Amino acid sequence: MNTDVISELIQSAQTKIVMLIMDGLGGLPRERGGNTELETAFTPNLDDLAEQSSLGLSIPVRPGITPGSGPGHLALFGYDPLQYKIGRGAMEALGVDFELCPEDLAARGNYCTVNENGVIIDRRAGRIGTDVNQELSMLLSMIKLDDADIFIEPIKEHRFAYILRAPGLNDALSETDPQRTGVTPLPVRALKKHSEKAANLVNQFLSSAQLVLQNKQPANMILLRGFAKLPILPTFQMKYGLRSAGIAVNGMYRGVARLVGMQVMDINGLTLKDEFDTLENNWENFDFFYLHVKNIDTFGELGDFDGKVKAIEEVDAYIPRLLALKPDVIIITGDHSSPAVLKSHSWHPVPLLLYSPFVRPDGIREFGERACTHGSLGTFPATNIMPIALANALRLAKYGA
Amino acid sequence: MNTDVISELIQSAQTKIVMLIMDGLGGLPRERGGNTELETAFTPNLDDLAEQSSLGLSIPVRPGITPGSGPGHLALFGYDPLQYKIGRGAMEALGVDFELCPEDLAARGNYCTVNENGVIIDRRAGRIGTDVNQELSMLLSMIKLDDADIFIEPIKEHRFAYILRAPGLNDALSETDPQRTGVTPLPVRALKKHSEKAANLVNQFLSSAQLVLQNKQPANMILLRGFAKLPILPTFQMKYGLRSAGIAVNGMYRGVARLVGMQVMDINGLTLKDEFDTLENNWENFDFFYLHVKNIDTFGELGDFDGKVKAIEEVDAYIPRLLALKPDVIIITGDHSSPAVLKSHSWHPVPLLLYSPFVRPDGIREFGERACTHGSLGTFPATNIMPIALANALRLAKYGA
Repeated sequence: MNTDVISELIQSAQTKIVMLIMDGLGGLPRERGGNTELETAFTPNLDDLAEQSSLGLSIPVRPGITPGSGPGHLALFGYDPLQYKIGRGAMEALGVDFELCPEDLAARGNYCTVNENGVIIDRRAGRIGTDVNQELSMLLSMIKLDDADIFIEPIKEHRFAYILRAPGLNDALSETDPQRTGVTPLPVRALKKHSEKAANLVNQFLSSAQLVLQNKQPANMILLRGFAKLPILPTFQMKYGLRSAGIAVNGMYRGVARLVGMQVMDINGLTLKDEFDTLENNWENFDFFYLHVKNIDTFGELGDFDGKVKAIEEVDAYIPRLLALKPDVIIITGDHSSPAVLKSHSWHPVPLLLYSPFVRPDGIREFGERACTHGSLGTFPATNIMPIALANALRLAKYGA
Repeated sequence: MNTDVISELIQSAQTKIVMLIMDGLGGLPRERGGNTELETAFTPNLDDLAEQSSLGLSIPVRPGITPGSGPGHLALFGYDPLQYKIGRGAMEALGVDFELCPEDLAARGNYCTVNENGVIIDRRAGRIGTDVNQELSMLLSMIKLDDADIFIEPIKEHRFAYILRAPGLNDALSETDPQRTGVTPLPVRALKKHSEKAANLVNQFLSSAQLVLQNKQPANMILLRGFAKLPILPTFQMKYGLRSAGIAVNGMYRGVARLVGMQVMDINGLTLKDEFDTLENNWENFDFFYLHVKNIDTFGELGDFDGKVKAIEEVDAYIPRLLALKPDVIIITGDHSSPAVLKSHSWHPVPLLLYSPFVRPDGIREFGERACTHGSLGTFPATNIMPIALANALRLAKYGA
C-alpha cells in the first residue's frame, strides 16, 4: 500500500472514527467442529452492529506470520510493520509506559550473578524479587554520565528497561549479554562509525554499574541487549490530519499510540468502564479514538477459553455506550489472533467489523471468524483498514480528475 | 511477499508437511451450468478432508497469467516466478531428468535437414523416429571439446536437450535456429562480453556436429535455441530449514524439485501406488514431502474431461493412505488449471485445501472450484502457501515483540 497517496488525499471533515481493539481477538475452536471463542461468546450488541457493517478478516503482517503486539498495532494504524520496526529495547521501555523520546537509546536489561572473576554464573540472578529489582534500579539510576541522562525502569523479577538519553546516539551496538553462562559480560562495541558515542557512554555506565553492584548478592552485575531507538514515523496528524486519542491501560499499547503521535489519555482506573469513561469525557476533543482492551489476549495466552469468552462478552456490554456517542466510523478488530488452544499469539487472520452510514452492509447478523469469512471486505492486509476508515469518514478526496 | 522475513522467522519443530500436487487440477464445466472435472469427480475422501480444512483458490503467477509447469511449481514452493526464471534450455534438460549442475549451459535442440548449400529445408528433419534420434545423439555425445563436457539427451522425435558443462559459461547467447526454412543455421553470438567463452565452445561443437551428421539423412544438422543456465535459488533447507523430499515420476517435476534443493526420490515404478509407497518408505527421513501427480493435467491437455475426472478419483482413493501417516500439515492443490474444454493450461485460480489441527475449518464438505471460492483462504497468491503451511506446522516464530 502506497500510504503517501493517502496523505495527499486527506481532506478535513467533522467526523469521528473509533478503533476498538480487542487484543488477541481471533481464535480457534476448542474441539473439532466446535466454535471459536468469539463464536461462542454471547454478543448481541456486536451481532446487531455486524448486521449493519462490512465484515472481513485482516492480516496484520503477512500471511502465515504471527505478529507481536508492536507490529500488530502498527499495521492497524496503517504503518507496514516490515518497513517500521520497533526494536526490543524500545518495546521494553514502551512496555513500562516510559515516555521514550526520539533521541533515547533503550535496551532490555537483566540483573545477573557473576563470580569473583566476573564470569556469569546466573543470567537472571536467581530471578530476584521485583522489590529488590526496584531498590537496585534506584541505585543504578543515580549513576552520573557526562552529558547524558540515565533511566533504569524496573520491570518484573530480574528485568528492567535501560534508557540512555543524549543527543547523537545511534543504536548500532553489540550486546553485552553473551546469552550463556561461564563467560564474562561483553563490552559494547560500536557496529557503525556513528554509534561510537553511544558505545562509549554505555561502557562508561557499565563500569559504574559494576562498582555500584559489586557487593550485592545475587544481583551483582547487569546484562544489556536489544539496543534500539524508536523508529521515526510520520504522525497520525501528519499522515491523516487526525487529532487522535489513545486510550489504553497497559504501557506497551500506550507507548505504541504515543509513537504514532496520538495523545495518550490519563485513565482514572484500570477497568473497561474507566476506559469508556475516558472515551466519553474526551469525545469532543479528538477526531480519532484508539481504545485498547487487553484481557482478551491475556486469557488467550493463558489458554483460558472460557475466560476469553467472558472477556469478549464484557466488551459487548459496552457497545451501547459506544453507539450512544454516534461515531461516524467504528472499527472493531484485534491486533492479532490469540487462540486459547495455542496459548499464544497466532498467524490467523483477525475478525473485523467496519461500521459507517456508508458501508455496504453485509447483512450478516453475527460477529465471528466464519461470519467474517463471508464478509464483503474479504481477507485483506490490516494496513488497508485506515484508508477504508478514512474514506467512510469522508476524509479522503477523489484521486485524479 | 518479503520472503527474507520468513527465513528469519524459521524455527525448528518435529512436524511434517505434505504438498500433494495434482497437476492441472483446476478446470471448467463441460457445458454451461455444469460441473467442472473436480466437481464432477466422486471424491468422498477429499470432501471429508475439505470439511476439516481451510479452502481457497491459488493464483500461481499473477491474475490472468497462464503458468507453465516451471513457474507454477516455483510459486507453490514459495519462489516468485517473475523473479526466478527457468529458461527454455534448462527446462528441457530438467524434463529428461538430467541432473543439471549450476555451471551447466543447456539448450533445446532440434535435428533438422539442410540442402547441399547448408540451407534449412526442414526444421524438424521430417520428425525422425526417436530411435534414430537416440543413435545420432550418441554420436554427437562423443564430440570432444577443449575443457568442456557435452551431453546430448534425446527427447521425442527430432528433439533433444543439449548440455555444455564447463566453468565460466554464461547464457547470454543468440540462437542458431532462425525459426524458418530457406536460410542457413546461424552461428551463436555472445550477447554479452562474458558469454564469449560459451559462444566459442558452442560454435566449435556446431562445426564438429556438422561433420558428424553431414552424410546422415534426413537429420544432417542441428539447431539450438533457448540457451539457459539454472537460476540460482535459495534451497528449501536454507529458506525454510526443511529436509525435503521430491516424489515425482516425470523428469521436469523431478528437476524443479532438485532445483529448490529437494532430495529427489527414486521410485520403483511409474504409478500412483509406487509414489505413495515411496512416500511411506521415506516418511521418517524428511520434514517436507512434495508428491506430484501428472496424469490429471495430461487428460486436461488432451481435452478428455472424463479421463481427467477418473484421474482425480484415482488420487482420492489414496487419501486414506496419506492420512494414515498423520502429517501435521497437508496441502492439496495444483500448479495451474488445465480445463479439458481448453485442452491446455489456463489462468484460472487453482482449488486448494489446507489441513492442519490449527486451521479454522471452513466446514465446507466439498473440494471443488466453487466450494473453494467460499473458503476462508480466499483467492490468494500461490507464493503465500508455504508461509501459511509453515505457520500451521508451528515452524515460524513470532515477528517482533
